[in-house]
Amino acid sequence: MRNLSLLTDLYEFSMANGFQKDMPDTRATFDIFFRKVPDQGSFVIAAGLQQIIDALPFSFTSADIDYFRGLHLWDEDFLNFLAHFKFDCHLRAIPEGTPVFPRESLLTVEGPIAQAQLLETLLLTILNHQSLIATKARRITFAAGNRPIMEFGARRAQGADSAIYGARAAVIGGAASTSNVLAGKLFAIPVAGTMAHSWIEAYPDELTAFRQWAKYYPDNSALLVDTYDVLTSGIPNAITVFKELRASGHEPVGIRIDSGDITSLSRQARQMLDEAGFPKAKITISNALDENIIESLLHQGAPIDNFGVGEKLITSASSPVLSGVYKLAAIEQNGQLIPKIKISDSREKVTIPGKKQVYRLYHQGSHEAFADVIALADEPIAEQHELNVFDSNPLSVSKIQKLTQFDAKPLLKPVDLKQKAVSPLTIQDFSKQCLAELPNETKRLTNPDTYHVYMTTKLANLQNELIDEN
Amino acid sequence: MRNLSLLTDLYEFSMANGFQKDMPDTRATFDIFFRKVPDQGSFVIAAGLQQIIDALPFSFTSADIDYFRGLHLWDEDFLNFLAHFKFDCHLRAIPEGTPVFPRESLLTVEGPIAQAQLLETLLLTILNHQSLIATKARRITFAAGNRPIMEFGARRAQGADSAIYGARAAVIGGAASTSNVLAGKLFAIPVAGTMAHSWIEAYPDELTAFRQWAKYYPDNSALLVDTYDVLTSGIPNAITVFKELRASGHEPVGIRIDSGDITSLSRQARQMLDEAGFPKAKITISNALDENIIESLLHQGAPIDNFGVGEKLITSASSPVLSGVYKLAAIEQNGQLIPKIKISDSREKVTIPGKKQVYRLYHQGSHEAFADVIALADEPIAEQHELNVFDSNPLSVSKIQKLTQFDAKPLLKPVDLKQKAVSPLTIQDFSKQCLAELPNETKRLTNPDTYHVYMTTKLANLQNELIDEN
Repeated sequence: MRNLSLLTDLYEFSMANGFQKDMPDTRATFDIFFRKVPDQGSFVIAAGLQQIIDALPFSFTSADIDYFRGLHLWDEDFLNFLAHFKFDCHLRAIPEGTPVFPRESLLTVEGPIAQAQLLETLLLTILNHQSLIATKARRITFAAGNRPIMEFGARRAQGADSAIYGARAAVIGGAASTSNVLAGKLFAIPVAGTMAHSWIEAYPDELTAFRQWAKYYPDNSALLVDTYDVLTSGIPNAITVFKELRASGHEPVGIRIDSGDITSLSRQARQMLDEAGFPKAKITISNALDENIIESLLHQGAPIDNFGVGEKLITSASSPVLSGVYKLAAIEQNGQLIPKIKISDSREKVTIPGKKQVYRLYHQGSHEAFADVIALADEPIAEQHELNVFDSNPLSVSKIQKLTQFDAKPLLKPVDLKQKAVSPLTIQDFSKQCLAELPNETKRLTNPDTYHVYMTTKLANLQNELIDEN
Repeated sequence: MRNLSLLTDLYEFSMANGFQKDMPDTRATFDIFFRKVPDQGSFVIAAGLQQIIDALPFSFTSADIDYFRGLHLWDEDFLNFLAHFKFDCHLRAIPEGTPVFPRESLLTVEGPIAQAQLLETLLLTILNHQSLIATKARRITFAAGNRPIMEFGARRAQGADSAIYGARAAVIGGAASTSNVLAGKLFAIPVAGTMAHSWIEAYPDELTAFRQWAKYYPDNSALLVDTYDVLTSGIPNAITVFKELRASGHEPVGIRIDSGDITSLSRQARQMLDEAGFPKAKITISNALDENIIESLLHQGAPIDNFGVGEKLITSASSPVLSGVYKLAAIEQNGQLIPKIKISDSREKVTIPGKKQVYRLYHQGSHEAFADVIALADEPIAEQHELNVFDSNPLSVSKIQKLTQFDAKPLLKPVDLKQKAVSPLTIQDFSKQCLAELPNETKRLTNPDTYHVYMTTKLANLQNELIDEN
């Protein structure tokens, strides 16, 4: 693992220097949450926690300290602190794979204020990125129904980590495999892929290229049929080789089409393969796909078995930013917890103060979730039978509501920094279970119904008090 | 440096296995080029070559080989090849910082076909990413005129490399500094930043927070004024502290505004600062900026001195993909060079065959570039006084044109893998020089004039022959 301790914005160091001098014994609680869901969806799939665990505890090398010294911004006292502090931050997080909603704390950090401040960018970069891609993968997987999604985007990713951790996040969000060998090795996820056009071009003709492929991969022959012309060259040549394969006791995998009008080409390909005696040969498509194009292709009845999804998944191209923020929620000084708020000019950006817990609420005795509620960490929500709440959305009408006959499950769990990585496929399974608990209307790709995220009355009152005070 | 040799798509290995068996002595030439410019611009700023140099020569560890063995896709002969091959690829590239145009080879690889095939994804991921961000930074820098751009996007980047190498690319494209400390250390680029809202919230009140900042950073006090209310709280408190600073012999840097209506807030802030005797205090803005918003703010006369640009730069959010491709251009077998082409169903996707060179053409004796021309590598373009060319754009009308009175400068240069990194700021200077040579109409942000990229007659004829043959 690389040391990512320096993946920090400069101002975190400048603040930590002041905090360390002015309030060395103060502890702080920071929350990570987001306000908007990419692609106008209703939920985000939380992802990235394991990479954060791998990056912690953080510390600085003597080369780092030398670099800081050369910036001439801070004194030796602070450099000494950076060289020797003992990591003492405690994280709570919503497990990877969980669908989460706006304003909910995905992760909280409690620790000495200077240390906790220094974690801001490292945590945000990782959580924002992986959650963004897991969410996009979930949208694409929904659109594809039961057809497997192969993550093919490495070459269009925004740098190596975007490719590597993006592949991991894609699997958490529902992808079946990745083409990225490094991700396959690091996370033990299935790797997939056939051939590029260069394979066909390197041989004197397409038929020879297909034959050689079948020779080396007799049980793994998925042939790319659009190098010259799909219908007059690619598929006829593929069928010739498929027949030869079968004659030698092997069954072909299928074909891949990477360009042209996919609906009509896949229909004609299906017919040609069926008529040639290969009804089980699969058709894979891989041309600038996303959830909208996949939905449209399937709506038109295109007979596609697998989707290879590239740049639009690995960059979440239609909505390439998850704007998670890291906000101070409370400080603890002389044994006293002081909740904190950021007010700003816009109502939408007012933060939710205090040390909190997030609960998922189910209809009593069922696995049907109907809302989440944000509460102060010390409120005994799980034991209550009745709950007075407000909508946490600052743009909603503020009206008290009474909730009854529910079971409440806390979502934020203490993070064990020694936690061993589990397979992204295991997290995918967990994610599917969580999603099965949500109302169907909330999971629609277009115009999803809002899933309510409430605040307890106590928390709402605290927020109002702090707004009035400032 | 991390070993990125495995940042490869599975199919490259599967192809390399076949190539190694079928044509172990064949050498290949691959080109990297793109067809479309992000944001409907006319050019891309080439970037990423140094990271490629740092990643080469590539090789595989015994742990990698064990992983391959476990995939059960390839035989021991091929694993043995992977464990022991001697890197023998030769790269030519257009230098970082150069503005480049559609269909031009940014980078070519010549080497044993199996090795050259294995480089595909590694090279594309790096070049696509860094060129994308350098291009976006150049657009944003154009919009900002002479006002400095600070790159602030790490927390919204798509993973760590997107933040780190994105900051490097942003500087190549024109950014003056980055907030990202790791990028600052790795590439020796200036780091910048002030404080977050958490600094202000951690103190009992805003005035105390500002005073403490000024105490620790008397010559570096840029105060964030929008935690509570910009006009009634933030700026008045900042002015109080600025007066105290001046009384103690220091001059304030200025203020930063991160929310609200920037045009009216910056105007009022300017007036308040001027009236208080601080006409040199700078106003920095940092709220979801990109080239369009910056252009609009400046068009409205907003008195802004610096721009902090975050997610929309580091992800190139409005156009988050540069679709560079890696295409086989020629193979060399038994001493004979055989040019290769990919035809496809769409005219737009037909590749330009052969081993090539790209020239920038200048009006004779001047530094005014008027077009580029793609030629076969062995055509003596620089020595010619007259050149018959076709437009290389497959969607243009194919008509011969005669060019005269030009100087021609070759752009593709041999890559020295031992080349030492130069500062991204030096590359930024080089890039500005190259840009100064281009026509102004080509550099417009909106509806730029097309800069012509021609092909020589010889190359056009070769392309047509190969289309007819296939």
